[in-house]
Amino acid sequence: MAETVFKKIIAGEIPADIVYEDDDVLAFLDINPLSEGHTLVIPKEPAVTLDELSEDSAAAVGRVLPKVARAVLAATGAKDFNVLQNNGSAAHQAVFHVHFHIIPKIGNDGLGLGWPAKNLKPKNGKDLATRIREHL
Amino acid sequence: MAETVFKKIIAGEIPADIVYEDDDVLAFLDINPLSEGHTLVIPKEPAVTLDELSEDSAAAVGRVLPKVARAVLAATGAKDFNVLQNNGSAAHQAVFHVHFHIIPKIGNDGLGLGWPAKNLKPKNGKDLATRIREHL
Repeated sequence: MAETVFKKIIAGEIPADIVYEDDDVLAFLDINPLSEGHTLVIPKEPAVTLDELSEDSAAAVGRVLPKVARAVLAATGAKDFNVLQNNGSAAHQAVFHVHFHIIPKIGNDGLGLGWPAKNLKPKNGKDLATRIREHL
Repeated sequence: MAETVFKKIIAGEIPADIVYEDDDVLAFLDINPLSEGHTLVIPKEPAVTLDELSEDSAAAVGRVLPKVARAVLAATGAKDFNVLQNNGSAAHQAVFHVHFHIIPKIGNDGLGLGWPAKNLKPKNGKDLATRIREHL
């Protein structure tokens, strides 16, 4: 995979406003925040998308999300927030190293969501769940 | 906290199209999908928001996200996807039990994102990162 800006941040080759680090995970402020406190939590493992990330790295990232979120809320005074992780250009991924956004919702600042929901027909749901389970 | 529909699904009191289950985590199809394969991955622990979830449950959910995502992609043929987790009504949370959405992006179907990014000024970033670290 190509070298990404996040790999350089992990290596300490370019600076970032780091808020948390352990053996497997790094968290730092997004330089193009949607709201105050917009933070990225990334695995040090250089996977492009979440489906390619090891289970151990995914668990390590999951483990730190609550405490980083709590610290972001405490520091900004925000109450509500979104966690977002994008995979692929069509899904708005811009840096090709897995990253979870923690995005406080503060008044009008924060993530905008479009939610064109449909209904799941019972027969379709049963069939689709079966097809997904066959891959697990 | 109030009884939620997800607690009833975990208890087996109401049906769902379940795709994965272990001691700590349950995954099932969203009944109002944004795209085919829209799946929810939830901790069995009844936390309302991610900042209130235990680290162990958060790690357990994180650990299964890659494999559930892979199965959803394999079953639907989707390549791109978003993972989204909403906390608080202002952040679009509708069921008050922590849940991670896995949402395939298939053509125009999927999550719509509004991304009104700003720039992080270096001085502000340094100060804000310091304030967040003080809570970690």
